[in-house]
Amino acid sequence: MVKLNDEEKVFSDKFWALKEKSGSHSPSILSILEISNRESFVDACFLSNPYATELFMEYFNRELIESGKLREFIEAYPPQNKEIAEYLSSTIKIPVGNIFIGNGAIEIIQAILHNFVNGKIVINLPTFSSYYEFAKEKDNVVYYQLPKERNYVLEVDPYIEFVKQNQPDTVVIINPNNPNGDYVSLENIERILCELSFVKNIIIDESFIHFAFEDANFSMVTTYDLLKKYPNLIVIKSLAKDFGIAGLRAGYCVMDEAKVTALLDTGYLWNVNCFANFFYRVYNRPEFMERYDVVRKKYIMNTQMFIKELSTIPQIKVYPSKANFALVELIDGTTAKDFMVKMFYTYGVYVRECGDKKGLGGQFLRIASRTFEENLTILKAIKDIFKNG
Amino acid sequence: MVKLNDEEKVFSDKFWALKEKSGSHSPSILSILEISNRESFVDACFLSNPYATELFMEYFNRELIESGKLREFIEAYPPQNKEIAEYLSSTIKIPVGNIFIGNGAIEIIQAILHNFVNGKIVINLPTFSSYYEFAKEKDNVVYYQLPKERNYVLEVDPYIEFVKQNQPDTVVIINPNNPNGDYVSLENIERILCELSFVKNIIIDESFIHFAFEDANFSMVTTYDLLKKYPNLIVIKSLAKDFGIAGLRAGYCVMDEAKVTALLDTGYLWNVNCFANFFYRVYNRPEFMERYDVVRKKYIMNTQMFIKELSTIPQIKVYPSKANFALVELIDGTTAKDFMVKMFYTYGVYVRECGDKKGLGGQFLRIASRTFEENLTILKAIKDIFKNG
Repeated sequence: MVKLNDEEKVFSDKFWALKEKSGSHSPSILSILEISNRESFVDACFLSNPYATELFMEYFNRELIESGKLREFIEAYPPQNKEIAEYLSSTIKIPVGNIFIGNGAIEIIQAILHNFVNGKIVINLPTFSSYYEFAKEKDNVVYYQLPKERNYVLEVDPYIEFVKQNQPDTVVIINPNNPNGDYVSLENIERILCELSFVKNIIIDESFIHFAFEDANFSMVTTYDLLKKYPNLIVIKSLAKDFGIAGLRAGYCVMDEAKVTALLDTGYLWNVNCFANFFYRVYNRPEFMERYDVVRKKYIMNTQMFIKELSTIPQIKVYPSKANFALVELIDGTTAKDFMVKMFYTYGVYVRECGDKKGLGGQFLRIASRTFEENLTILKAIKDIFKNG
Repeated sequence: MVKLNDEEKVFSDKFWALKEKSGSHSPSILSILEISNRESFVDACFLSNPYATELFMEYFNRELIESGKLREFIEAYPPQNKEIAEYLSSTIKIPVGNIFIGNGAIEIIQAILHNFVNGKIVINLPTFSSYYEFAKEKDNVVYYQLPKERNYVLEVDPYIEFVKQNQPDTVVIINPNNPNGDYVSLENIERILCELSFVKNIIIDESFIHFAFEDANFSMVTTYDLLKKYPNLIVIKSLAKDFGIAGLRAGYCVMDEAKVTALLDTGYLWNVNCFANFFYRVYNRPEFMERYDVVRKKYIMNTQMFIKELSTIPQIKVYPSKANFALVELIDGTTAKDFMVKMFYTYGVYVRECGDKKGLGGQFLRIASRTFEENLTILKAIKDIFKNG
């Protein structure tokens, strides 16, 4: 069981005071650095593919900086929402009328919850907190607790049964789920859609789906195509994680055309900044997509190896994940808060302590996969902590 | 009276088809270039201070690019809304609780109209179209027509009378107004606030206020301080125009704390991208503000000289303006559409044709002030068109 030394305790107090101000999310990197003795750290809290960031930076440097076009981008208005949906349409092969572009997925979550939910929403636990935090006051949030004893896996039959009993107008499934990484197969998603045709909005949040796979080649999976058959399907997609560009705020939603129109009719005109717009332009090139797919697969391999190696550490339980992170339970009596603080302060690795996540019950950390080399650092830090106490 | 030649007519058809897709706003620069024979043009449609862009670019280049920190910014999540409000608070000397940060002023307009207007809204004509386009379907938009024969000036007594008769819950005053540049003095704004205490939301849009002035030193004016006395005041502020950074999407709103809390309670968590965040950090430095104030005043002088010179051209009427643009009426029989097309296609200057603006009645262009040299180009183009037909 791991305990804090005096220096770590001092940092601990500062960190939790800062965290308090950030609500149910992690404080920003800059603000953590400001209270620490460090100039940098391995960020295993933040969920993104660093190889994809590297790839995008190549385009950014060449086409915005070296070309001398940066000022033009910063000075001018970006294109309107619909214009950007047009290029994304050819990238993801979905009619432009079904695409809503967001200022990050978080804006889309807000837009859907505020505009289309009217009554009752079923949210699985554990989950990404904005789904319940952004619900309108008058809406009734009903939680479906994923059972810990079954690794927080979403099992289709009891879930369908629960939704039928509750008769909500909206349900949310994050796939793979955050914070545990459980993946619901396409076949099971279709079963759910088929059985729940009475639910007005079936939100599938695919923010981590580029890290999931159903075959040995890690081919890309998605539920977009089911929209034709199930018009109540709403697919929300963050681009921050898979492309490693959280700072740009990019994301989109694929849904029924009437919903897209309803949103664009009274808002969301210029919600995409010039750099996110540049990203969508680059994303639209087959040559970029090919290169992206290589770093996506490289990162998945990396991640799966990392999770496997984590699973060999006896003091923790690692939950199965097809996302780019693992939910880790400390089972040797160490508290997750102390572990997180020691890991950051003494070993320079920042992991997500999950004490503020509803529906977990236990001492949990969420640990992101980073580069191959960083993952070695993370693994070594965890092992050293348990060795050195 | 100016007429188009055959080449100009071909371009004209393409331009108006493109414009049709952009609704009541100008198409983006990129999309205009794509249908034209040009690689660049003087953009006198776009309303921003080019000297301020230049100043900001200096910081951007030094602190993000040369420092090697660009990747960090793009990769990481930006700070939350409240954290950014904290530094802006010390910049604009307003308590943090009264500040709501937006993804551009347009997001704030939408947030206010969708969350706080409940019934009837009085909007002056002419105006910025989003104020009526973003109104909820069930809300009743009542227009107050500013009289053309009095240069579309907002006269306080008849305005107050109109609002009292109509008993709306919300009124909007853009100050200086877009598209005519009329400025309502602080004294008159306070009279309006004093008389209209029964109106729940008094929106003052100060997106162009950095270009307005009440003294010979061009000292900065604002109504923030009136919030203490009039809690129904809502000041909306775009940062795109004065700082020349439309691509970044930055803006904020100063209003009653309860309204800020209501918005942040169920949304707007990470609505500021990394580069807008960088702007707020820079804006917070006294040294930057000093330098900004120099380029602000230089640009005002520039603009006022430009408007004066425009006023000497006999074929047009120029409306008085304290913004960074002038509303110009063609009074020689030329249509505004033809003038705009010839000006762009043959002279390389893009001006805003105002045919889609409600409440004007006539052949109108809105012409922005740019750098001193660009303004000379704009003036020469207008004079040449009238000379050469």
